[in-house]
Amino acid sequence: MPEFLELANPNEALRTFLEAIHGSPRAERVRTEDTLDRVLLRDVVAPSPLPPFPRTTVDGYAVRASDTFGASPGMPGYLKVVGEILMGTVPELEVGEGQAVVIHTGGMLPSGADAVVMIEDTQAVDDTEIEVLKPVADGQNVLHEGEDVQPGDVVIQAGTRIRAQEIGGLLALGFGEVEVAEVPRVAILSTGDEVVPPSEEPAPGQVRDINSYTLSALVERAGGRPVRYGIIPDNAEALETIAKQAHSEHHMLLITAGSSVSERDITADVIAELGEPGILVHGIALRPGKPTILSLCDGVPVVGLPGNPVSALVVAGLFVLPAIRKLQGYRGPEWSPTISASLQTNVSSVAGREDWLPCRLIVTSDGLEAEPVFGRSNLIFTLVRADGLVRIPAASTGLDAGEEVEVRLF
Amino acid sequence: MPEFLELANPNEALRTFLEAIHGSPRAERVRTEDTLDRVLLRDVVAPSPLPPFPRTTVDGYAVRASDTFGASPGMPGYLKVVGEILMGTVPELEVGEGQAVVIHTGGMLPSGADAVVMIEDTQAVDDTEIEVLKPVADGQNVLHEGEDVQPGDVVIQAGTRIRAQEIGGLLALGFGEVEVAEVPRVAILSTGDEVVPPSEEPAPGQVRDINSYTLSALVERAGGRPVRYGIIPDNAEALETIAKQAHSEHHMLLITAGSSVSERDITADVIAELGEPGILVHGIALRPGKPTILSLCDGVPVVGLPGNPVSALVVAGLFVLPAIRKLQGYRGPEWSPTISASLQTNVSSVAGREDWLPCRLIVTSDGLEAEPVFGRSNLIFTLVRADGLVRIPAASTGLDAGEEVEVRLF
Repeated sequence: MPEFLELANPNEALRTFLEAIHGSPRAERVRTEDTLDRVLLRDVVAPSPLPPFPRTTVDGYAVRASDTFGASPGMPGYLKVVGEILMGTVPELEVGEGQAVVIHTGGMLPSGADAVVMIEDTQAVDDTEIEVLKPVADGQNVLHEGEDVQPGDVVIQAGTRIRAQEIGGLLALGFGEVEVAEVPRVAILSTGDEVVPPSEEPAPGQVRDINSYTLSALVERAGGRPVRYGIIPDNAEALETIAKQAHSEHHMLLITAGSSVSERDITADVIAELGEPGILVHGIALRPGKPTILSLCDGVPVVGLPGNPVSALVVAGLFVLPAIRKLQGYRGPEWSPTISASLQTNVSSVAGREDWLPCRLIVTSDGLEAEPVFGRSNLIFTLVRADGLVRIPAASTGLDAGEEVEVRLF
Repeated sequence: MPEFLELANPNEALRTFLEAIHGSPRAERVRTEDTLDRVLLRDVVAPSPLPPFPRTTVDGYAVRASDTFGASPGMPGYLKVVGEILMGTVPELEVGEGQAVVIHTGGMLPSGADAVVMIEDTQAVDDTEIEVLKPVADGQNVLHEGEDVQPGDVVIQAGTRIRAQEIGGLLALGFGEVEVAEVPRVAILSTGDEVVPPSEEPAPGQVRDINSYTLSALVERAGGRPVRYGIIPDNAEALETIAKQAHSEHHMLLITAGSSVSERDITADVIAELGEPGILVHGIALRPGKPTILSLCDGVPVVGLPGNPVSALVVAGLFVLPAIRKLQGYRGPEWSPTISASLQTNVSSVAGREDWLPCRLIVTSDGLEAEPVFGRSNLIFTLVRADGLVRIPAASTGLDAGEEVEVRLF
């Protein structure tokens, strides 16, 4: 009596799920300095050039390059020092033939000059004259106006997640506020008659709810706002009432479905009633995570997660995180930060099923080793002991000790 | 006229800097659910076992394993069904010889039973009798009490940064609050007569302050709280007054030192006056980032960063981030999440200096390629166009096109 007639391929399941999610997120205007990790909603077009004026990249003398041609320590060029550029001011003087002007890194190039001789390549004769010991080419040691950005350039694309450098770039161009996607509110429901809030002392036979909290942490990290609905008893009516309410008030809904087949059946039935098109994927060729449900109900992604805490976290990393990004209009790359290590022991796997194996990273004199942390998917400390997960592809029947693996960091 | 007599090796500079930072962070009691990314200050010892009682991992029947030995589809074992274990309750019945009890995944194993037969491996004869088609071993499909954690185990070590799974593990053990390190407050000072706040329209010759904001974002991401002091004029007295105040009120101090030699000299002089032992490293064999100053003044790390926005961000990633973690008592690993890619073009480098090259990742049919983003370190959009940095070791004179490189993601 197989629970699932056909298990979906994990990559196809993810693609199906993400393609179903569309529609534009609501925009919010936010001060640029507060936009770290938010997703930009419109292309940013440079209104003005960067740098806004020609600047020197060194300390030295603004000159006409042609005045330095052929200069050498043995046959220096002589230039007259006619002034100094003060930082943050517009140079009023002009550099004529045979003249030089003192300039500091970042200073604005005076008119007439087309290059800067580094101070190290000069020798002062007196207060008003220098020897140039090395020639400079036209434009040398100068940042041109617009060298970084030209007016009209699309400098940051819609769908970009904002990092430190985007904040810097936006402020450099004078954008004090930008439109970013509203933070998706993600409702989290736990089910299970044996589950009690973590603040309670569980009676024998009961366990504490931890999925609500581990999933909250993951949602937060992905840029969502978790809203915990607490523990729902294993009964279709109660779950349906609360799921409908949560569905109507949030951008996404996660239900940890309990572990037994009957609890999972209740969850699937309730999800199927929440709206069209409903369940897209039910059952994935994945361990942990086989009983996962991916669905879209009236525009709201709803995920049924396994009740086991390890499975719930792994599945959330694989499917919930990309969905939260998609809800924000994220269009950037989905790199998974990894670290290469040598697998410490042989690991077997069933062909036809993708496995994700928790591993601990160990520094050895030969480099990093990945030590598998074996443990059943009910045991949360399996993941506490691990630094990341190693993917064993569906086609593989296992990995060999010594094999180079990519550990996907948590 | 070399500005630095001797440039420090980047790794040694980091080691010297981190070793100088000691002392314990102040503890703060925080609700476990709010501790994501905080650093734990004390070892966590399990007060009780996990799981707290023997549980089944499958839906099926709790039995005595010996009753199933030799069972097969052709020669099934017959067992009497004497009841059902309800979720979250303590089983009152006992499983005797020749008996079975209905049990659901996660349910507590009743006394007398030592294994669980999966429902798939049974056939109901009637309401009170089943055929067992496959034997189970003692303990099969059962999580033993304490299989995840035994009382007295150190389950999370002091100095661990809390992830989703640590939150789960702590709550599973009943820790509603934990002691974590206080968030370090990091003061950020920008210098430069040509620098204006980003909200102002810069006059010709002026540029907007972006370092204060990019560094704030980085500090935030590392788990610190940035405090911006704004722009300080290039004058030793003004800088000294404000640096002394910032130093006395914060856990760490960052000064972006302006770009010209004279501005950098002022910064170095001011830092040297802030306390003992003072400057530890001045000048690093690193590009970008050569003029970096690493110091510890009366227990407070003070970093003088180059004024160029690209240099400031790269140096902050290499030196400021690890220091903020150390201030929090972090003792975990310093993995840098990376991604492997094939370098798209030849890149040259000066031997004796470690280079960090911004690269963009491009998905091709042959896998990921890393495309160098060339640009001078004054140009912030160089980093906006990049996904990460590739390290070119000091011993190397360059990297070849097609070479496999590790891109350190921002």
